[in-house]
Amino acid sequence: MSKVIADLSMSLDGYVAGPDPDLEDPLGQGGERLHEWAFGAQSWRETHGQEGGERNTDSDVIDERVRATGAVVMGRKMFSGGSGPWEQDPRDRGWWGEDPPFHAPVFVLTHHEREPLPMEGGTTFNFVTGGIEAAIEQARAAAGEKDVHVAGGGTVVQQAIASGLLDELEVHVAPVFLGGGAPLFERMAADVGLEIVRVIDSPTVTHLRYRVLTR
Amino acid sequence: MSKVIADLSMSLDGYVAGPDPDLEDPLGQGGERLHEWAFGAQSWRETHGQEGGERNTDSDVIDERVRATGAVVMGRKMFSGGSGPWEQDPRDRGWWGEDPPFHAPVFVLTHHEREPLPMEGGTTFNFVTGGIEAAIEQARAAAGEKDVHVAGGGTVVQQAIASGLLDELEVHVAPVFLGGGAPLFERMAADVGLEIVRVIDSPTVTHLRYRVLTR
Repeated sequence: MSKVIADLSMSLDGYVAGPDPDLEDPLGQGGERLHEWAFGAQSWRETHGQEGGERNTDSDVIDERVRATGAVVMGRKMFSGGSGPWEQDPRDRGWWGEDPPFHAPVFVLTHHEREPLPMEGGTTFNFVTGGIEAAIEQARAAAGEKDVHVAGGGTVVQQAIASGLLDELEVHVAPVFLGGGAPLFERMAADVGLEIVRVIDSPTVTHLRYRVLTR
Repeated sequence: MSKVIADLSMSLDGYVAGPDPDLEDPLGQGGERLHEWAFGAQSWRETHGQEGGERNTDSDVIDERVRATGAVVMGRKMFSGGSGPWEQDPRDRGWWGEDPPFHAPVFVLTHHEREPLPMEGGTTFNFVTGGIEAAIEQARAAAGEKDVHVAGGGTVVQQAIASGLLDELEVHVAPVFLGGGAPLFERMAADVGLEIVRVIDSPTVTHLRYRVLTR
């Protein structure tokens, strides 16, 4: 059964990136700390073309997401950190080099049209100018029986929830304060319901999964 | 071993009370939903002088806190919702009637001096004008071998963390969006460390406990 699921790491004070992100430091000040739990996990290293790492609970959680995902949706900022016309974007091939860790079609929300960009390792970046609903619709068609993974940032997740198209939400709560930055949840509609699906904990992070109840 | 521990319920979007609290609705719009997990628990009902309720995981978590607590620290807003001189505070005996659910000495942070206020059932409200450090110090002396429970609101917890006197933090994450209100964590110092102590989950809430690492 194909699902649309947002899945991202959040600090205990609610941020998915730290203050003052720039091209050198795309996750903002301290933002890397949100993902420390993943860096040592075997499955994370595998998708990023690295060897080694631990086979643990966190690795299993990542592995499960990788196996379930048929397509990814993300915002322009997450893709390149840029805005405006593509010719002026210094990171117009994304952050991840020529073999990005997605290994699946990725649908990037943007205001600026662009041809699809095939990369190595099975990732193709597709650029969607029709908004979150169009992006999820295209990702769903590409994903087939598999899930659509809404990867971020926070505003894209907020749009996905507001659209009523998000089925589930998996938040990896990192034991970290960032003190500012990009909030995952901002001015949420109080009538969006949540139901706890499961909780998995490890010494370094807590994985909370919710069903999102459409109004 | 006596500990100083903040323990409160938070929405997934980070609030300990909803928008627009007033004397009719002290927890703000939707704020009651943060505590729904507790209302049906036997131990919560017991401390509030009510019968019945379920004996479940959540009830055990509350029970453990009640048994461990020797004294409570809270802010003026949590105590009465008021501010300014006590003569002008319509809730100057607190929200909870003549037999409050604390059954222990409570230290209320205020800018306005006042004699201690003994209530029924073992609760005495003490009023502290010397700030968070004085309140925790007095509560620690009153608690003896037991814990000091910093009960809220958010700004008081923030002050306790900033003071370096908070040992632990227990956040009951309710599967609820409030969309606004009083944040638990606001402009936290990014160099305050957290360590996961334990995670307990139930179908209605997730109990996250952290050790707070002093800088």
